[in-house]
Amino acid sequence: MSATLEILPLAKKVKVRKKMLLSEALREAGVPLSLYCQGRGLCGKCFIEVLDGKLPFFQPGEEELLVRAGLSPAHRLACQFVVESDLRLRIPERSLLGRVSVLEPAFKVQLPFDPVIKKYSVFLPRPEIATAEAELDILLQAIKSFPLRVALAVVQELPAVLNRSGRQVTAVVREGKELMTLEPGDTSAGVYGIAFDLGTTTLAAELVDLASGRTLGREASLNSQAAYGADVISRISLAFEDSGRASILRRAVVSDMNRIIRALATSAGLSPDLIQAVSVAGNTAMNHLLLGLPVDSLVVAPFNSVFSTLPELPASELGLEIHARGTVYIAPNIRSFVGGDTSAGLAASGFSEGRTTALYLDLGTNGEIVLRKGRKLWATSTAAGPAFEGMNISCGMLAQPGAIDKVEADLNGFRCSTVDAAPAKGVCGTGLIDAASLSLERGLLTPQGQVTTASRTIPLTGSLALTQKDIRELQLAAGAVKAGIRMMLEANSLKAGDLEEVMIAGAFGSYLSVEHSIRLGLLPEVDPRLVRFMGNASLAGAKAFLVSVPSRKKAEETAARIEHFSLASRPAFQEIFVSSLEFRTWK
Amino acid sequence: MSATLEILPLAKKVKVRKKMLLSEALREAGVPLSLYCQGRGLCGKCFIEVLDGKLPFFQPGEEELLVRAGLSPAHRLACQFVVESDLRLRIPERSLLGRVSVLEPAFKVQLPFDPVIKKYSVFLPRPEIATAEAELDILLQAIKSFPLRVALAVVQELPAVLNRSGRQVTAVVREGKELMTLEPGDTSAGVYGIAFDLGTTTLAAELVDLASGRTLGREASLNSQAAYGADVISRISLAFEDSGRASILRRAVVSDMNRIIRALATSAGLSPDLIQAVSVAGNTAMNHLLLGLPVDSLVVAPFNSVFSTLPELPASELGLEIHARGTVYIAPNIRSFVGGDTSAGLAASGFSEGRTTALYLDLGTNGEIVLRKGRKLWATSTAAGPAFEGMNISCGMLAQPGAIDKVEADLNGFRCSTVDAAPAKGVCGTGLIDAASLSLERGLLTPQGQVTTASRTIPLTGSLALTQKDIRELQLAAGAVKAGIRMMLEANSLKAGDLEEVMIAGAFGSYLSVEHSIRLGLLPEVDPRLVRFMGNASLAGAKAFLVSVPSRKKAEETAARIEHFSLASRPAFQEIFVSSLEFRTWK
Repeated sequence: MSATLEILPLAKKVKVRKKMLLSEALREAGVPLSLYCQGRGLCGKCFIEVLDGKLPFFQPGEEELLVRAGLSPAHRLACQFVVESDLRLRIPERSLLGRVSVLEPAFKVQLPFDPVIKKYSVFLPRPEIATAEAELDILLQAIKSFPLRVALAVVQELPAVLNRSGRQVTAVVREGKELMTLEPGDTSAGVYGIAFDLGTTTLAAELVDLASGRTLGREASLNSQAAYGADVISRISLAFEDSGRASILRRAVVSDMNRIIRALATSAGLSPDLIQAVSVAGNTAMNHLLLGLPVDSLVVAPFNSVFSTLPELPASELGLEIHARGTVYIAPNIRSFVGGDTSAGLAASGFSEGRTTALYLDLGTNGEIVLRKGRKLWATSTAAGPAFEGMNISCGMLAQPGAIDKVEADLNGFRCSTVDAAPAKGVCGTGLIDAASLSLERGLLTPQGQVTTASRTIPLTGSLALTQKDIRELQLAAGAVKAGIRMMLEANSLKAGDLEEVMIAGAFGSYLSVEHSIRLGLLPEVDPRLVRFMGNASLAGAKAFLVSVPSRKKAEETAARIEHFSLASRPAFQEIFVSSLEFRTWK
Repeated sequence: MSATLEILPLAKKVKVRKKMLLSEALREAGVPLSLYCQGRGLCGKCFIEVLDGKLPFFQPGEEELLVRAGLSPAHRLACQFVVESDLRLRIPERSLLGRVSVLEPAFKVQLPFDPVIKKYSVFLPRPEIATAEAELDILLQAIKSFPLRVALAVVQELPAVLNRSGRQVTAVVREGKELMTLEPGDTSAGVYGIAFDLGTTTLAAELVDLASGRTLGREASLNSQAAYGADVISRISLAFEDSGRASILRRAVVSDMNRIIRALATSAGLSPDLIQAVSVAGNTAMNHLLLGLPVDSLVVAPFNSVFSTLPELPASELGLEIHARGTVYIAPNIRSFVGGDTSAGLAASGFSEGRTTALYLDLGTNGEIVLRKGRKLWATSTAAGPAFEGMNISCGMLAQPGAIDKVEADLNGFRCSTVDAAPAKGVCGTGLIDAASLSLERGLLTPQGQVTTASRTIPLTGSLALTQKDIRELQLAAGAVKAGIRMMLEANSLKAGDLEEVMIAGAFGSYLSVEHSIRLGLLPEVDPRLVRFMGNASLAGAKAFLVSVPSRKKAEETAARIEHFSLASRPAFQEIFVSSLEFRTWK
C-alpha cells in the first residue's frame, strides 16, 4: 500500500505509505518544508504544486490562502494533503525552509583550558623477560594516569595496536579517568568534540578542536520536533499522553543532531568517528525528550525534573553517531523548566560568579529569568511561546536571510532592514518588537494591544503586514516575561532601578532594541548601557563544558544552589500576568 | 548433512553434523564424558557402546584398550569415533565424569566487611511544587552517596519505580560509585555475588550473600577447556595458532561459568538476575582466555601478560548471565604466569602482610611459588602439568568419590583409602605422592624414577596400578616445583632451614602428606609443624574481593610490588630442573 513521490526540483523519488500526510512524507524524505503553524493549515507556508497525480479537494480555508498567495489552482497545502496515489510534485522555493544560521556567542569565555578528552602520544619500551611487565601497566606508566577505567575492547585491541605501530601509540583519555581508546602512531593532533545548544525551535552546534580549544565550524538547523508542537508544553503533553510519540520526538531530535554531526565533520574533513565527546545544553523538556526520560512530572504538578546533574553517558546509548565509546555530557538542569541551557549560559557568561544585583534573561520559546542579589541566585521560567522566534506569527520567520530584523520610523511609515539585506520574506522576533513599539508610539496600536487601523493590520512592506492575532501572540510572550521579572523583583523587595546589570541571552542575539523593549514593557526600565547582549550563551556554555572540565563542576554547584522561584505555586501569578499584558513602560 | 544420536541411559536425542567427532558431539549435547588424555585415544576412558548403527573399524591401539577394559566388541572410544550415520548409544557409567566436589578454603578470612554492592532502602519524600527538586537528587540525598555514576536506563526507569512502590525504594550501589539499579519496595536483604576460582582443570564457585557475607552454596565443575588441552601451555598454544580456537576456549569456560551460576542460583532459590557481582581468581592464561585477550605475549618471550590490574568490567561484555548491569572483578595478575589465583590467595591468606621468611605454594596444573623475606616478596610459576590433579596418569582422577587419596604402608603392600570411602576407581594427586614415596622406601622405585618390579608397575589395588609412565609424569611435576623453590631460595641466599612457614594452597587441600612430599623432594625439608594447608585460597580470595572491597586495593598493591622471579630467563634453570627430577630429600 505505497505510493511513489517524485519531488522536483530536488530530483528525489521516494516510496511512501498511502494515507500518510504529504507534509509528513516530505519530512521523512528530508525535504525541509516550512510548517510554521505545525500542520494546522493556518499559515499557508507549505504549498506544493501537483504536476501529475490526483489533486484533492480544498480543505476549509485552503482556497483562500491559495488566492492570497497568488498561486495556481494546482497548489495544495502539504499539511492537509493525504497521499492516495503516485504524485509528481514541485516544491516552490517559498515553501522551503531557509538555511538556519548559527547565532554565535557574543562574548569571550574566560575559563581554564582543561579539555574533557586529552591525548597522550607515547613510545612504549619493550617489556623484558626478567620483569615481564604487563602491557597495560607499561602504557599507564608512560601516560602517568592512574587509575583508569578502560573498556574490555580497548584491552583486547592493545597488543595488536602496539604491534602495528612499532609501540608508538596515542592514548585517548577522558577526564583523566578513562582510557577511551588507543590509536596507533602519533595522532595527538586529532581530538574533537561537538557542543550543542538544543533549543526548542533551533539546534545550534560547534565543532571544537579539543587540542587547541578552537571552534572549527558551526551548524544549525530547526528542531524537527517542531512539527509536533511549537512550544515545550505541547511537546511534553504529546509525550505524556503517548509513549510512542515520545519515541518519535526522541528520534526526531537525535536524527537532527546526527545530521549536524555529519555536516560538521564533513565540512572539517573529519570522520565522525574522530569526535569523542559531545555536550548538550538544552532546557529541561528538551533534555528529557532527548534522553527518553518520562516527562510526567513536568506535565503535572509539582513540575519537577527527573534529574538535575547526570554523569557522562555513552553516546551510543543516546544513538549519537560519534566515536563508538564517545560520551555525552548533559548540562545540569537547575529546577523544573529552568534547564541545562540556563546553567550553561550562567557558566559561560560568568553570571553565577558576579556579586551585583543583576538579571539574566534567556528569551526564546521558553523564557528563563535568573535574578542575582549579592551571592544569592533565584531562577524561574515562563512560557513565552515561540513568538520571539517568529513562529505563530502570520508573516513570521526565524532570523534567516530576508527576515525583517529591524524596523525604524520613517516619514511614510516604517523602514525595514532584513537579515543579509535580502528581499523581505517575513519578520523575526526583533523586527516584531520594533514594529509593535513604533506602532504603539504612532497610535496604530493601543497599550491594550488593539490594532486601530482600518485594515486591522499593521503593514510593514508592500506584501507583509502584522495582524491583530500576531500582536496578541507578542503580548502573551512579552507579558509572560514581564510578569516573571516583576514577581521575582517584588518578592525580593527590589525595583527595576536597583538593577545594576541585565544580561540578555538567546535567540535575539544583539539585535533586540533595548529602547523598544522597555517601551513595550518586555524589559524593566533600566539605563540601556546596563544591558549586555550575550548571544547564544547556552552554546558558549556547552563549549565550555568540553574545553574546561572544571566549568562542569561549577555549573553543577550553581545548579544545586540556585533557589527555584516557582511562578506556578504563587497565587498572585495569574493576576500579575494579566496586568503585564499591557504594552507600556514599567511604572 | 546431519545424523541423530540417541543417548542412553540419559534418554537424550540430538541432531549433530556428520563427520563430527562423537566425543565433541557428546560434549555439545552436555554429556560429561571422561577425556583425560584430551582425545588422543590413549587413556581408554571414553568408551561408549553402540546399540544401533554402523560400528567403525578399530583405530590403532583401540582394540587393546578395549580388551584391557574387559568391554564387549560393540564399544568404541568416543574421541576416535567419526559420526557417519544415525546412532543409538549407551554411555557406560565408568565413562561419565563424576561430580566434582568443591575444595573449600581451610582457614577463616579476617578482613573488614565492606561488600562491593550495598543496598539502601529509603522512603523518598514527595517533591514540592515550590522547590521542585529533581527525583534523582531526592534519591541521592536519601542514600547520602554522591557523586554517583548511573546508567541512563536506571534514570529512565526511576519515575516508574517510584510510582509503583509508593516511593519506598531500594537503591543498589556498587562501590559507593555507581547506582546500579533501583528496586521497588524494601529489597535490602537480597544482594548476592558469586566468587569463582577459575582453575586450569576445575572451576569452583561460591554464592555469597553480600548483605551478611555468608556463603550460601558451593559448586564446582571441570573446566570444559580441558578437552582442548590439559595444561595452560597447550591451551594458549592452541589460542595463539588459531583465533577461532581462542573463541571456542572462551565460550567453553563462559558456558561452564553460566552453568555454575544457574546451579548456584537454583539451589538457593534465587533468580540469576539477583546476582549483581562476580569476582574471578584465575591464573594469567585462564583470565586472558576468559576475557578474549590475545595470548601471544604469553606464548613467546617475554611471556608478559596484557594486563595486571583491570577495573571492573560489565558482566554482559563477558557473556556472564547475571544482572544486566552486574560487574566482574578480575583478580590482578602479578607477572607473567603468576596470575590472579595467586594474588587472590595471597590476599585471603594474609601471606602478603606477614614479615617472616616463608613460602607460599599453590600446587595445581600450574605451580605458583611465592617467597617472602621480611617485607619483600618474589613470585614465580612453574609448569607442573596436571599430574597433581590426577590427569595424564593411567588410573588417575580428580579427588572425587572413589579416588585413592591416601596410601599407607601395610604388611602385604599398600592400604589405600578413597574419597568418601567409595570403591576405588582411580588415584588422585595425594594418593600418587603417597604411593611413590612408599615405593621409594620399599625399593619398588629408584630415586631416578625407575620402577623395579617385574611387571614394571606398582599395584595399588587388585585392578589399579601405577605405570612407569605415571611415575615419569610425577617426576616432572615434582621436579618443576622443586627446581623453582631451590632457585628462589638460592638467589636470596636462603636454605630450607631458614623457612619459618610454608603455606600450601591448591588442589591438594589438606590431604597432602608432608612427610612423603619431603621424602620425594617436592617440599623442602622443614619441620612439618611449619606447614599450613590453606585449601582453596584462591576461592577464598575471590570471595574476599566481593565482601571486602579494600582487599582488592591491597591485592593490587601487592601484585604491583611483588618482584617477578623469572625462571625462563635464568640460564641455570634447565640444569637445576634436571637435577631436581630425582626423588630424594633436599640435601
